[in-house]
Amino acid sequence: MTHDPSTPQRPSPETIRALTDELKRSFGERVSASKAIRTQHGNTLTWGQNAPPDLVVFAESTQEVSAIIRLAADRRVPVIAYGTGTSLEGHLNAPLGGVCIDLSRMNRIVDVRPQDLDCTVEAGVTRLALNHHLRDMGLFFPIDPGADASIGGMTATRASGTAAVRYGTMREVVLSLTAVLANGEIIRTSSRARKSSAGYDLTRLLIGSEGTLGIITEITLRLNGIPEAISSGICSFPSVKQACDAAITAIQWGIPIARVELLDDMQVKACNLHSGLDLPETPLLLLEFHGSPDGVREQSERFGAIAADCGGGTFNWVTKPEERSRLWQARHDAHWASKGLRPGADAVVTDVCVPISRLAECVEATQRDLAENDFVATIVGHVGDGNFHVQLMVDHQDPRESAALTGFVDRLVQRAIDMDGTASGEHGIGQMKRKYMIAEHGAEAIDAMRAIKAALDPLGILNPGKILPQMP
Amino acid sequence: MTHDPSTPQRPSPETIRALTDELKRSFGERVSASKAIRTQHGNTLTWGQNAPPDLVVFAESTQEVSAIIRLAADRRVPVIAYGTGTSLEGHLNAPLGGVCIDLSRMNRIVDVRPQDLDCTVEAGVTRLALNHHLRDMGLFFPIDPGADASIGGMTATRASGTAAVRYGTMREVVLSLTAVLANGEIIRTSSRARKSSAGYDLTRLLIGSEGTLGIITEITLRLNGIPEAISSGICSFPSVKQACDAAITAIQWGIPIARVELLDDMQVKACNLHSGLDLPETPLLLLEFHGSPDGVREQSERFGAIAADCGGGTFNWVTKPEERSRLWQARHDAHWASKGLRPGADAVVTDVCVPISRLAECVEATQRDLAENDFVATIVGHVGDGNFHVQLMVDHQDPRESAALTGFVDRLVQRAIDMDGTASGEHGIGQMKRKYMIAEHGAEAIDAMRAIKAALDPLGILNPGKILPQMP
Repeated sequence: MTHDPSTPQRPSPETIRALTDELKRSFGERVSASKAIRTQHGNTLTWGQNAPPDLVVFAESTQEVSAIIRLAADRRVPVIAYGTGTSLEGHLNAPLGGVCIDLSRMNRIVDVRPQDLDCTVEAGVTRLALNHHLRDMGLFFPIDPGADASIGGMTATRASGTAAVRYGTMREVVLSLTAVLANGEIIRTSSRARKSSAGYDLTRLLIGSEGTLGIITEITLRLNGIPEAISSGICSFPSVKQACDAAITAIQWGIPIARVELLDDMQVKACNLHSGLDLPETPLLLLEFHGSPDGVREQSERFGAIAADCGGGTFNWVTKPEERSRLWQARHDAHWASKGLRPGADAVVTDVCVPISRLAECVEATQRDLAENDFVATIVGHVGDGNFHVQLMVDHQDPRESAALTGFVDRLVQRAIDMDGTASGEHGIGQMKRKYMIAEHGAEAIDAMRAIKAALDPLGILNPGKILPQMP
Repeated sequence: MTHDPSTPQRPSPETIRALTDELKRSFGERVSASKAIRTQHGNTLTWGQNAPPDLVVFAESTQEVSAIIRLAADRRVPVIAYGTGTSLEGHLNAPLGGVCIDLSRMNRIVDVRPQDLDCTVEAGVTRLALNHHLRDMGLFFPIDPGADASIGGMTATRASGTAAVRYGTMREVVLSLTAVLANGEIIRTSSRARKSSAGYDLTRLLIGSEGTLGIITEITLRLNGIPEAISSGICSFPSVKQACDAAITAIQWGIPIARVELLDDMQVKACNLHSGLDLPETPLLLLEFHGSPDGVREQSERFGAIAADCGGGTFNWVTKPEERSRLWQARHDAHWASKGLRPGADAVVTDVCVPISRLAECVEATQRDLAENDFVATIVGHVGDGNFHVQLMVDHQDPRESAALTGFVDRLVQRAIDMDGTASGEHGIGQMKRKYMIAEHGAEAIDAMRAIKAALDPLGILNPGKILPQMP
């Protein structure tokens, strides 16, 4: 069952010119082939080379997306969707050129239904814009990947973030999607029912498919009530192992932790330098609990007892918003603090995820690897999910550093896979991690993925060169 | 993109004879073509006609399942997987004959990992057997569809049940699957990482695919710690609307209800008769809360206040196991109590699911429909999910009753779809609900499902005649 998802050739300049003219007739000024716009839509945050599309169209409705895809399909031109450009793994690059459909103007919040705790938004709505809109209704959308990404992009990459341990990832919170397929047909993947046993799960098939099976234009999301009370706390541990043990024990006890973040000693050191803190330069856990006032007190006290049992220091916890922000400052500053460790270098961020029982071992082996190879790097982990990020400060211009970086990521991913983990917990595969897909899934499962891709996108026009490894 | 998932013809008697001989060489006494075994493997609980397979093979490993599928594929013979036979919608019927692979002997609990709160089981393990095994480790598997179904069958039908409002459905609790595809290849759909952004979600594609895309042989499941404290309570309401409003309000307030079940007045009446209870014959909510002793007290008291605000009666709640069982007796007896309303009749159970804001309206319209058509019937709902079951006591021998039943289910499903709900919240589509699939999903989404089916099962041998509607 090996299918060749017939990857299109790079379209000829004549083809692109003809398509551009055709698109301009419908979209006028909303079609751009300027160098600046194209480069900006290629890839801004990844460590791969920028590969811009041939042109960018700013779409304003699902019907427009459908019309653009039909025109592109007629000429077999690649189509790449764009939200906010915060992808880290080269999802937006256009290695064969083609049309980039910018969805950022599709930013309407279509409906919010407080009784059903759900809402429907267009793909270009960002998570902060959504939460701003929801706040007065006492509701919030819990997925927080850090960047103010678009909901469409978060869906396409199966994003998650700090609150996934309690609220799940995009896989769990998306109820239904509207998407445009490679033939221009518009589908809705599911009703708004909270659960269904009616047919193939097209919703979950599209979530995480990175624009290779369809372009997501509307998303129906589960929401949560803003918790009555929130407590935040931090606790230092002598070792990563002890910090992870505390988190595992708390989860086993059924404490509904809302967030549990690990900063490694290098990250704490960076935060002390950057933000003038005086935290002990050992692994640090930062926690958050959501519930009733009595509930968060009980959860915080129980966690404090567990932390002490595991050899941690005092668990300091607070409930007032300004005090919570102060305690979590190290986490909020982590990215910029890390960059401060080597001013002028590029910050490369990568992530893997392993079963939580293997997390400490995986982090510690990774720290040894970083030290042995003289990297300036920090580690931040979403401990409750077994997911962690390594942020490396490197000089891309130096071929030796570039090669060392590649070697490091190869070893990191293989280490995670060897522990029955995954090449990416939340950033996605894009271009940069395609080469690990067979090691993770096996050739037979990749064949099944290729068969699905070929069935839904027989011309191979949707975001070519992503997710699936190159054919041998 | 309309694909014909080339449904195989019924194999000739010679083909079946040759395949039987071939299978007997490998599987000996574990191949059966006896009438009793075949009929038992056709369909026992559905209201459709029994359509037995030509032969049954009792498989004992993933490799054996692969070998059987390869032999069947060579001769283009249909293959149907069987767990415990508790399907309600004709999933197990063999309209074209073929080989039934009985997985009930694949009942090993492969591994339990308390630190990761997960386990791996073979497809034939039942949920009660699993929970029996887990109890001493302080763990439990939360999905409770009522019947002691196999984990494989529950996965294949995307089952859920009473605790889904808190713990999710099979969609949420399955981490990874081992499955055999139509070509005999064995795949593992995912690592054991709690989350991943690495590639297409084959796990969720197979969950709910009812054996039409692959046969699931091993399942890795998320588990939960047995809660420290459990409280159970019941509360009568003047109307279904008020009962639903109480549940909605509690969920909006973030009370982590573990179970919230509705019995309609007919169901309460049936339980009073059957079990000698004296409950008020009005809609009844039964609830369960999981947490710390203080936590469940707070949750129970808060719910009591909400229920009173919504016009409910006193919320009686208890924590001792024997008292909890007594309070919930009406729910446990619901099925047999309903049958007692019309001794000798067949009990037909069907389900739909709607957004929770529409649940009361949908239940009340359904009650009117039942009354207008003189059905003896009861309704039980998983209120937190918007999912409810109608149990009708009918005489299948009477063509008038049979036709009336079909008309009722048609109207019920259309009513749910009109409210942006689904034809089945948890029972699945099987044979019986195929005809509603286009109304629910639209022709374009069904075309996408057909394309996936054709890509993964080009010969159409896996459980033909299920889920996807007949081609026009």
